[in-house]
Amino acid sequence: MSHPHPELTLPPALPDGGLRVVALGGLGEVGRNMAVLEYAGRLLVIDCGVLFPEDHQPGVDLILPDFDYIRDRLDDIEAIVLTHGHEDHIGAVPYLLRLRRDIPLVGSQLTLAFVEAKLKEHRIQPFTLAVREGQTETLGVFECEFVAVNHSIPDALAVAVRTGAGTVLHTGDFKMDQLPLDGRITDLRAFARLGEQGVDLFMVDSTNAEVPGFVAQERGIGPVLDSVFADSTKRIIVASFASHVHRVQQVLDAAVAHGRRVALVGRSMVRNMAIASELGYLTVPDGVLIDLKGVDSLPDDEVVLMCTGSQGEPMAALSRIANNDHKVSVGPGDTVILASSLIPGNENAVFRVINGLTRLGARVVHSGNAKVHVSGHASAGELLYCYNILKPRNVMPVHGEVRHLVANAALAVQTGVPADRVVLAEDGVVVDLVDGKASVVGAVPCGYVYVDGSSVGGITEAELKDRRILGDEGFISIFAVVSSADGKVLAGPQIHARGFAEQDEVFEDILPDLTRALEEAAAQGAVDTHQLQQVMRRVVGRWVSNRLRRRPMIIPVVVEA
Amino acid sequence: MSHPHPELTLPPALPDGGLRVVALGGLGEVGRNMAVLEYAGRLLVIDCGVLFPEDHQPGVDLILPDFDYIRDRLDDIEAIVLTHGHEDHIGAVPYLLRLRRDIPLVGSQLTLAFVEAKLKEHRIQPFTLAVREGQTETLGVFECEFVAVNHSIPDALAVAVRTGAGTVLHTGDFKMDQLPLDGRITDLRAFARLGEQGVDLFMVDSTNAEVPGFVAQERGIGPVLDSVFADSTKRIIVASFASHVHRVQQVLDAAVAHGRRVALVGRSMVRNMAIASELGYLTVPDGVLIDLKGVDSLPDDEVVLMCTGSQGEPMAALSRIANNDHKVSVGPGDTVILASSLIPGNENAVFRVINGLTRLGARVVHSGNAKVHVSGHASAGELLYCYNILKPRNVMPVHGEVRHLVANAALAVQTGVPADRVVLAEDGVVVDLVDGKASVVGAVPCGYVYVDGSSVGGITEAELKDRRILGDEGFISIFAVVSSADGKVLAGPQIHARGFAEQDEVFEDILPDLTRALEEAAAQGAVDTHQLQQVMRRVVGRWVSNRLRRRPMIIPVVVEA
Repeated sequence: MSHPHPELTLPPALPDGGLRVVALGGLGEVGRNMAVLEYAGRLLVIDCGVLFPEDHQPGVDLILPDFDYIRDRLDDIEAIVLTHGHEDHIGAVPYLLRLRRDIPLVGSQLTLAFVEAKLKEHRIQPFTLAVREGQTETLGVFECEFVAVNHSIPDALAVAVRTGAGTVLHTGDFKMDQLPLDGRITDLRAFARLGEQGVDLFMVDSTNAEVPGFVAQERGIGPVLDSVFADSTKRIIVASFASHVHRVQQVLDAAVAHGRRVALVGRSMVRNMAIASELGYLTVPDGVLIDLKGVDSLPDDEVVLMCTGSQGEPMAALSRIANNDHKVSVGPGDTVILASSLIPGNENAVFRVINGLTRLGARVVHSGNAKVHVSGHASAGELLYCYNILKPRNVMPVHGEVRHLVANAALAVQTGVPADRVVLAEDGVVVDLVDGKASVVGAVPCGYVYVDGSSVGGITEAELKDRRILGDEGFISIFAVVSSADGKVLAGPQIHARGFAEQDEVFEDILPDLTRALEEAAAQGAVDTHQLQQVMRRVVGRWVSNRLRRRPMIIPVVVEA
Repeated sequence: MSHPHPELTLPPALPDGGLRVVALGGLGEVGRNMAVLEYAGRLLVIDCGVLFPEDHQPGVDLILPDFDYIRDRLDDIEAIVLTHGHEDHIGAVPYLLRLRRDIPLVGSQLTLAFVEAKLKEHRIQPFTLAVREGQTETLGVFECEFVAVNHSIPDALAVAVRTGAGTVLHTGDFKMDQLPLDGRITDLRAFARLGEQGVDLFMVDSTNAEVPGFVAQERGIGPVLDSVFADSTKRIIVASFASHVHRVQQVLDAAVAHGRRVALVGRSMVRNMAIASELGYLTVPDGVLIDLKGVDSLPDDEVVLMCTGSQGEPMAALSRIANNDHKVSVGPGDTVILASSLIPGNENAVFRVINGLTRLGARVVHSGNAKVHVSGHASAGELLYCYNILKPRNVMPVHGEVRHLVANAALAVQTGVPADRVVLAEDGVVVDLVDGKASVVGAVPCGYVYVDGSSVGGITEAELKDRRILGDEGFISIFAVVSSADGKVLAGPQIHARGFAEQDEVFEDILPDLTRALEEAAAQGAVDTHQLQQVMRRVVGRWVSNRLRRRPMIIPVVVEA
């Protein structure tokens, strides 16, 4: 297995007849999935998603794939193929379409409906081509065959891309539930046929490659919900992902079975389920849905609230309910079900919600104490099936952190794929498929692109570092007006501090020293304001370090008058 | 079970002959454990630990129990009983001794050695009384019998406190490994005897009460280490907690078995293992330990590095090794073992370390893929044994978040403890044991006390909120000098911003508007600097919100000249 190395340089030109693959996101993180295929001078984009920030990226709203690699080649893009409707696969489409509005979007009916709803908020009306499993479409030089896959959202597709350089099979996100609710299984017969025909490069979801065995069935959650519902004598609140149509379906079915009615809570939940129901992916039994306003007029044991916030997002309904800060209230005897995974990094927030609900007297059922969630991604056991049925000539693990990619690569090798044909690439690494062999040939710059308020890409690591210092250490601004004639301090110095135990008062102590230091500096010929500012920074910095043991950001301003 | 309620008021006076228990930390969080027992006007403190901050507490070094409840009663304290040497049980002792230096510390030999090393750094020499299991000491009005318990640090003790009001048994932290490395099991014979004599209030560790079944044996980790060592042909790095003497023992033993030598890395690891070895808790085979400097002269397959940083702490050895920023380097073929739990909230940091090490080519073995860690806290199955052998008259779950306390309470009830004798209390809740019945009688204020640089308790929620705003949104300071005569702007306005995509430059756009707004305000009679500052804040705030979609902290300063 070839490890990506920091010493990788820009790649040579793609040889004639070769296929190039560059991921601009999703290889090294779980999110912002985006792969760019190039053949004969033309490009095909597969997915264009967002990544959600971690705590060391304060204030950041979203993280995008880095479009720089294709910024000058937008006109070469034949289409964006969207494998399914999750945010980490479609969320960055509006930002790419801002660069070129008429790139066609290709995907299944539900995927396109979700992305169109999102684009509407950005006031973009896209060009779309809806496809179904089994269908083949020629997108410029790329012949794309779409294959059904099973995932935690309906209507997900893998795509086989045929070019003169060979066939690439990209799974998107998938698992292999053999008895899914909608009967739409990952099409292993198509995988087998593609394998017979020859898959030259298999780009395969790595998210669960470290997890041994097989993902349990979605269908298994129904009986668990049923028994929790049967045990509940008061209100039931279920939280899950706003796009998890089948999970919501099972909640609706359980509600009907137990004579309860369901109110959907949360904008994205309401919007997505309206789409899913209109398109026939969600079957809403007659009369089961009620408006949130109608909840209070029903007895507690006839109510289910289906809401977002299962990851402890502070502004979502569930967190606010747990904080007793929402029109929906929870009390002793109520049951809350977190029918969702616990995404790493969200533990503290989720446990805060669980503790809050527990404190209010609710029973909290979650994946830690009941089988109310199954993953959407193939575990190691399922991946082994895929490798064996496909017998791909080359493998490129996608979608995951480095640990996931490496674990997936090891599985490929275990099934007999030669180690030198398993390509470990991170974002920006350039992989060429030439003469039937895939290899790393270089890398292009590929950074994190932060969306922050109205700024896209303006925030860099430097600003994030500033924010971390501001958040951890606070800041001090110092202001003085000095005479341009004799350097005497005419006004100030004034100190303003934030984030300190003792606010401005304690800093009074330093003012006489500061004035003295300024006037001494002026007396010694330091007349320009920049030098005087450095004097103020030094005096205050040293004092704060000694007295308060802190290293805040210090902004000194000297004005001459 | 009585849930704590926010409407609790200050408690009435403790009835004559009654016993009062107030936890000043540890009930509602995992950490800063501290309980205060009161009888006949005298106080006994059990444990005095720290809590480590979460991400929403930026810049905070440590969180202490709230000593306010006992601040005016320091002279009533007979002693501080320390159940074991973990930071969350001893870490706040220096801060309590700062208030009264001569409070006696009572604990086992190893516990006292660890706390004395810590106090030495604070330049405090304590009064101590070393005790052993089986021993009974009269501490003023409290007769204390010490009972051996098994935990993830040697020499841990439970304490039975006898008073005229009845007997309290406090477990400290414990589990019930039946074949511990040192043969020192949790003394269920003593528990049985105490039960026969009558335990009126059982204060019991709740940390793992949600976890079904039993904790696996520490001894089971040896064979796993052995097989990982056998598979390793290059360097081995093991990371664990710096106080986990038995884990380190097993690493030393595995090293000897495989012809390797061990360098301890990290100040606390070196210090604690020196203490443990000197006191006979750690058996160091001859010649197995080497200095870190000696590592480079040994072949890779003769080296083990035993270090801290298993929680992804950014400054610890392991994180720096993973970042390629440490004198110890890791490369292809090396093995890293994280022999530790993953404490909730640390996932992102730990996974960053695992990804970094994986990227460097190392094989990373951790509790997610091998049995290299067992917990130190009794699971539900073990707790049931305790309840059944003790048959306590009243139960008060301690040490845990609300969800843990509630789960532990449910176990007590399942074994037949009447629900009205299971007391659910959080920090500050006052529990009185009167006439053999424990009940909640009120609550005293009990906040989080933040250590931040040199400040203890100065930082409040208000400053933390400021810091979160600073970290998420950045700040803008605005300065202007105006004429006291006619309100004309003499110098400035100047804007300085940090944490923004566009730093100061973009703010140039607003300066003309700002000057105009100031002079208009002055013309309309707003002459005091406070009013002018509000004008600046409003103009800049509105502009930043509209143009940048941000809500930073804004500090306007107007000086008259």
